[in-house]
Amino acid sequence: MSKAQFGVVGMAVMGKNLAMNIESRGYKVALFNRTGSKTQAVVDEHPTRNFQPTFTIEEFVTAIEKPRRIMLMVKAGPATDATIQELLPHLDKGDVLIDGGNTFFEDTIRRNEELANSGINFIGTGVSGGEKGALEGPSMMPGGQKEAYDLVAPIFEQIAAKAKDGEPCVTYIGPNGAGHYVKMVHNGIEYGDMQLIAESYDLMKQLLGLSVEEMADVFAEWNKGELDSYLIEITADILTRKDDEGTDKPIVDVILDAAGNKGTGKWTSQSSLDLGVPLPLITESVFARFISAYKDERLAASKVLAKPKEFSYEGDKKELIEKIREALYFSKIMSYAQGFAQLRAASKEHDWNLPFGDIAKIWRAGCIIRAQFLQKITDAYEKDEDLANLMLDEYFQGITKKYQQAVREVVAIAVQAGIPVPTFSSAITYYDSYRAERLPANLIQAQRDYFGAHTYQRLDKEGIYHYSWYYEE
Amino acid sequence: MSKAQFGVVGMAVMGKNLAMNIESRGYKVALFNRTGSKTQAVVDEHPTRNFQPTFTIEEFVTAIEKPRRIMLMVKAGPATDATIQELLPHLDKGDVLIDGGNTFFEDTIRRNEELANSGINFIGTGVSGGEKGALEGPSMMPGGQKEAYDLVAPIFEQIAAKAKDGEPCVTYIGPNGAGHYVKMVHNGIEYGDMQLIAESYDLMKQLLGLSVEEMADVFAEWNKGELDSYLIEITADILTRKDDEGTDKPIVDVILDAAGNKGTGKWTSQSSLDLGVPLPLITESVFARFISAYKDERLAASKVLAKPKEFSYEGDKKELIEKIREALYFSKIMSYAQGFAQLRAASKEHDWNLPFGDIAKIWRAGCIIRAQFLQKITDAYEKDEDLANLMLDEYFQGITKKYQQAVREVVAIAVQAGIPVPTFSSAITYYDSYRAERLPANLIQAQRDYFGAHTYQRLDKEGIYHYSWYYEE
Repeated sequence: MSKAQFGVVGMAVMGKNLAMNIESRGYKVALFNRTGSKTQAVVDEHPTRNFQPTFTIEEFVTAIEKPRRIMLMVKAGPATDATIQELLPHLDKGDVLIDGGNTFFEDTIRRNEELANSGINFIGTGVSGGEKGALEGPSMMPGGQKEAYDLVAPIFEQIAAKAKDGEPCVTYIGPNGAGHYVKMVHNGIEYGDMQLIAESYDLMKQLLGLSVEEMADVFAEWNKGELDSYLIEITADILTRKDDEGTDKPIVDVILDAAGNKGTGKWTSQSSLDLGVPLPLITESVFARFISAYKDERLAASKVLAKPKEFSYEGDKKELIEKIREALYFSKIMSYAQGFAQLRAASKEHDWNLPFGDIAKIWRAGCIIRAQFLQKITDAYEKDEDLANLMLDEYFQGITKKYQQAVREVVAIAVQAGIPVPTFSSAITYYDSYRAERLPANLIQAQRDYFGAHTYQRLDKEGIYHYSWYYEE
Repeated sequence: MSKAQFGVVGMAVMGKNLAMNIESRGYKVALFNRTGSKTQAVVDEHPTRNFQPTFTIEEFVTAIEKPRRIMLMVKAGPATDATIQELLPHLDKGDVLIDGGNTFFEDTIRRNEELANSGINFIGTGVSGGEKGALEGPSMMPGGQKEAYDLVAPIFEQIAAKAKDGEPCVTYIGPNGAGHYVKMVHNGIEYGDMQLIAESYDLMKQLLGLSVEEMADVFAEWNKGELDSYLIEITADILTRKDDEGTDKPIVDVILDAAGNKGTGKWTSQSSLDLGVPLPLITESVFARFISAYKDERLAASKVLAKPKEFSYEGDKKELIEKIREALYFSKIMSYAQGFAQLRAASKEHDWNLPFGDIAKIWRAGCIIRAQFLQKITDAYEKDEDLANLMLDEYFQGITKKYQQAVREVVAIAVQAGIPVPTFSSAITYYDSYRAERLPANLIQAQRDYFGAHTYQRLDKEGIYHYSWYYEE
């Protein structure tokens, strides 16, 4: 019996779909799952596929040609460590383990180091695109030993999504945890994109009184221009859908307004705080989900907390819709500028040498944040790979110049109308902070020196100073 | 020779000052420092004080009466663990170790557990008020075994700051890491308060063109009313001070606008993210410090990024100053509401049973955020210890009702004028989100169900649903 060229551990939907995707490119794939009946079910469902079901770890490892390429599609966390420990005694030097779970990057750094001591290569790869992406072509963000990546690259390039220009949405991201880090930031950006769309929808609904159908048309229209992206596209689609549970209402009108989260947005914010990189937009979007989940408290508060004084927008509806579109694009740029600034800081911190332009490139298809405008980010880094902040690139400078006025007006209106726009407003305050020659942090430094003798620096000369605040005492 | 009633390890300024404070209440205090010359220097400087200098750990421990009360005033982190390990072999069951450093609460939880196995009690206490507070009376937030706290309570109550009504600013906070957790949130709140003051200053300076002297008067005036607090008071004082390095300028005008931070604000935000509690105001204030530190990038950006179209405030100056004051008080309430909501969630998570009203009480003197309005928080929790959010208390409801319009106007003006107000704007978006009967999170849930089959809940009936988004495929 011929050996399998690839092995997949974990037959939940993501593992199964990736195995199908790999098999469909002409590879024989060994399958293993802790509960053997699941493995059997996959081969029973797909009898003509070139799968090799196995029912012990030994049988699984033996079935794969060396150097082995084994992908773990198990639950992130202790299950990953347990699976690695079970596999380890049966592996040979030079084998490649690949973790395709939503793993915290620091775990990937640790596992990569630990396994390197046994001569086993370890790749942690982000896999974006959900179940459908896994089956039809995800965007993949692999990090680990470069020589190990070279062994899996031919397969990954075949199974990955293809951008419109035909390029596969996968590239070597960097050593150890780099791939999972980039996937984490991708997910944080996804939180931001979704919240920006939600605020746009809320403004059109509450301020302009647009119907769900009208908003579906607006998003469909927006999707034809510079906002062209998967999330705008599905928003337009979602808004056309009717409830399938017996009411005749649009589905969005029956869905509870309490958003869940799986934690990767939170990790992104926490990492930005560790790195000292401002990430207000994504963080506000994480907090917005938290507040939404306080549904009962909000209902109680809505009855007792004061509303703003009556505010109605008297201008032209179409004009404001266009301003909301401009505010959305402007804010999206702020979010990506923050996310890429964080990648830049993480790259320095961990010596990853991240390929910023290529990262934007591999997000062009397969993943949730896929969008036309990512090409602009690639272009910006191709022009200047040391770009301190995306806003400084000529194209993005031009957009911010054109659209900054719109976001100011939209935020001013929303705040006066009492419609919460946490990410729109954080976008403009970030922009104004970043372009501020002087910020009031001098006063903060004076306060810190006053009560804590934390010292201060000066505008007019170098050095560390302390003021004698208490000389009169 | 009589035994000492208390021991202090660590003769840096905080340890020395606390030892002096304790000695001044009639206690004999044993002193130890890893570098003996520092211990000697303290007793040489203060020959008449009832100090017992010691130069080995054994000598130090032997000098103290049992059960021993030993306070560690060493650098938070590995130095604390090392000191504990050195002390441990010489201690007896029932002795009390107290960590007065700025320790991360999870370390305190771990140490409390580890030491309990050896029969040693461990208290982690927040000590706020800086060097001066340590010497003259800090606000103290002790957590650990209650019976151990009872042994140190008589001393702590004597050395702590006293509120105007004479009550000492110390109370038992709760088990293991509770004290250090509350100190961490205190510091986060301090970041928020400082940023709010900085934004107020920036608006008066940039928008209204007030001179430093005029602003000193404004803050002094504000300090007479409901904003009466240490930070407002020192801001007024700071603004009266001239440079002492040879220029004739106000000191604030020569201080570099790049704020530092010691990490406790960051911890507070990271913990809020772990708990699922929205903490936008403090988090924006942490990010504002980060952005301020990007001074070189900001200078470059200020030359190329577009300004808003000319905006000048034409209204009455005094009126806007009053609105800024109202916005500051409103936003401060949002910040404390968020901080106390976080304490509430942490209390549940760790089974701490935190005394919210008492926590506000012990912040009334000694610490950096001391303020008249803390009494209002105590009152609110005395009326309802299960209060879900401070905003819902009658007094705070009244204030938000009176001042919400001002913060809306101030934010709308600032955003149009291009003056960054990240915390003011996050305050009003938090308020509007919290009082929203409906948020647009229904759309986010629809998107999540669309691309990730994350399911959704409904407004009209219980249960978990999934929509067949792909039925047409």
